[in-house]
Amino acid sequence: MTERISSYFLDRATVRDYSDRPVDPELIDRMLQAAAHAPTTGNMQLYSVIVSASPAERAILAPLHFGQPMVEGCQVVLTFCVDINRFVRWCELGRAEVDFDNLQALMYGVLDTALFAQQFNTIAELNGLGCCYLGTTLFNAPAIAEALKLPPRVVPLITLTVGYPAGEAPKSDRLPARAVIHHGVYRDFSDEDIRMLYAEKEALPDSIRFVKENNLDNLAQVYAQVRYSGSMNREFSAPLARFLARFLAAES
Amino acid sequence: MTERISSYFLDRATVRDYSDRPVDPELIDRMLQAAAHAPTTGNMQLYSVIVSASPAERAILAPLHFGQPMVEGCQVVLTFCVDINRFVRWCELGRAEVDFDNLQALMYGVLDTALFAQQFNTIAELNGLGCCYLGTTLFNAPAIAEALKLPPRVVPLITLTVGYPAGEAPKSDRLPARAVIHHGVYRDFSDEDIRMLYAEKEALPDSIRFVKENNLDNLAQVYAQVRYSGSMNREFSAPLARFLARFLAAES
Repeated sequence: MTERISSYFLDRATVRDYSDRPVDPELIDRMLQAAAHAPTTGNMQLYSVIVSASPAERAILAPLHFGQPMVEGCQVVLTFCVDINRFVRWCELGRAEVDFDNLQALMYGVLDTALFAQQFNTIAELNGLGCCYLGTTLFNAPAIAEALKLPPRVVPLITLTVGYPAGEAPKSDRLPARAVIHHGVYRDFSDEDIRMLYAEKEALPDSIRFVKENNLDNLAQVYAQVRYSGSMNREFSAPLARFLARFLAAES
Repeated sequence: MTERISSYFLDRATVRDYSDRPVDPELIDRMLQAAAHAPTTGNMQLYSVIVSASPAERAILAPLHFGQPMVEGCQVVLTFCVDINRFVRWCELGRAEVDFDNLQALMYGVLDTALFAQQFNTIAELNGLGCCYLGTTLFNAPAIAEALKLPPRVVPLITLTVGYPAGEAPKSDRLPARAVIHHGVYRDFSDEDIRMLYAEKEALPDSIRFVKENNLDNLAQVYAQVRYSGSMNREFSAPLARFLARFLAAES
């Protein structure tokens, strides 16, 4: 690994603050075209991306991402969508008997779309741009689909905000490698393992502050009861399941 | 974009034929550690990876991937898994009220895992290694989970075979950019659009051969009736849905 590549991958960080410097629309398209060379299931490319560049286009999306400031503060919002519509249209035109209304087909599209988005993220960052994944896309998938005029079988999956960074973005911590890498088979964790794996994360100043601000006992409670609470997870799972019904229906 | 990066992203290709040259196990671990700096939902890193390096470990996986020769022909098989187990264990240890048994939480993990795998794929390719995504992981998820001793809440999602390439890998075609990139809103396709977008793909020598070999009318029929037939999609969707029941149950 050349040092340049190595340090990029180790030092990359999510960028939430963007400068006013415009992003060349042709650069976005060229980077998307390059990203489309990412691996894709059976070369089907079961994805589309909606480019929202103008302030008006981004303003429509902002409330659907709960007003996160990156949407209006960036230069370009990209909504990466599972697109089974285009493929099915092609099949219908060829009088092919197609059935992609099922869980496996949905997952072909989910993986294709995620790999495409991540490939774009890497290419954009290597071009000096900063990106932020918004975790809110699947919370409001039905409303985002309506705003972007997505036809049936097109599912908004990932949103990236893109722009040139304003200043240095803070790096995130990561768990020790042994939390993630297993050799041969999965080695489940003892309580002591878990304590050790999360100890460094729990000791970070930000973590201590989150626990204190929320008046909780520990960082796990901040995650499970505040940031990703069961009630929130359940509240947004039901409409997503309804939105995905054609892909989940046969199995339920 | 420096020319070096640009040409890598445009010229990369899936590698299915591997040389006998061994892959340093420490290089695999270092590349996985670098890949773990990929974006992840709320910094939860809801994934694990199982490294199957020995011939015996890979031989166990081979039939679960329908005997695809890459599994035994490569040097290392990586099974990237959604891992909600480790997170839940941490929450339980902290007496946090956690509910990640729902569709949104599954999708946090699916996206985290896909981004991690793709970041590894890029790092490995930039190091001169070749990789192949196996599309079969979710077909046999229950059996792969058993073989790799995955506990509940750990889902095998993506398998990569890794090794040094034997020779030059053939590049894949991709659809024209306008098939994938939409500006402002999704612009649905006319029949004529669809014909034009797929014309180049349909005219490739391999495509013409596939159609002829299968005695079909066109490439869409090869995809929808042979390679990704409805009966195959449905056959493998049912056991996957049962395997994912704890995440899908509340919504069904």
